[in-house]
Amino acid sequence: MTLTGIDADEDEAATLAAATVYVCITCRRPDDPEDGPRPGLALARATAQAAQGTGVAVCQVQCLANCSRPCSAAMRCDGAWAYVFGGLEPDRDAPALIEGARLLARAQDGILPWRGRPEILKRGLIARMPPIGFEEERE
Amino acid sequence: MTLTGIDADEDEAATLAAATVYVCITCRRPDDPEDGPRPGLALARATAQAAQGTGVAVCQVQCLANCSRPCSAAMRCDGAWAYVFGGLEPDRDAPALIEGARLLARAQDGILPWRGRPEILKRGLIARMPPIGFEEERE
Repeated sequence: MTLTGIDADEDEAATLAAATVYVCITCRRPDDPEDGPRPGLALARATAQAAQGTGVAVCQVQCLANCSRPCSAAMRCDGAWAYVFGGLEPDRDAPALIEGARLLARAQDGILPWRGRPEILKRGLIARMPPIGFEEERE
Repeated sequence: MTLTGIDADEDEAATLAAATVYVCITCRRPDDPEDGPRPGLALARATAQAAQGTGVAVCQVQCLANCSRPCSAAMRCDGAWAYVFGGLEPDRDAPALIEGARLLARAQDGILPWRGRPEILKRGLIARMPPIGFEEERE
């Protein structure tokens, strides 16, 4: 059976809806004032804006514990590995986070592909974690 | 209703069974030979041994992408935050990983408590990630 265009669009939207980007809203860089507006919050707002119409969910969190390399964000998708990124800039990297989440949602093997991944999601990679139900590697 | 001792034990075992420690088996420290036995694998084996009889699952993984601060491990439990740790020593830190997983499994709020947490799981904290179904923080 061939999907109609509408069916395919709905299928795509359903897949991407399972992708969530978590943005730390307490992150600040070493030079940022402690009592000023948090760049993490600015990144969260920019990411939510970049997500509009994509089906990717954006969720604000208090601290991803990556305080030495702000700003921080993570992404997860059902059945896929989860990723944490650091060194993000609020006025630059929101579109890369959404692009990464879309790539992850489409990845058949549940792994964020290296090829085509936005550069900041390569050099800013902090850690990854296997999906629930991941099976042990063989020695 | 008061649980009998046996029921309580079974309940405890069921809770802890949901906790999994993931150990990176490809981790090596800067001074380790590239083709020698990987300290990450030694840590994974020690952690599996330390887990015996506790109900905590230990799972070997290829790379947690925390390559700048080896050795690395992560832990997760149903409904709880997930954590990634680095700077672990194979011959020292396996019991701390199991103790941390037990603390996480018992945490009512899904957050690994700071008080009582093994020291290496404080200074070796790399990142954390909210559980699936986590609700957005309010601004």
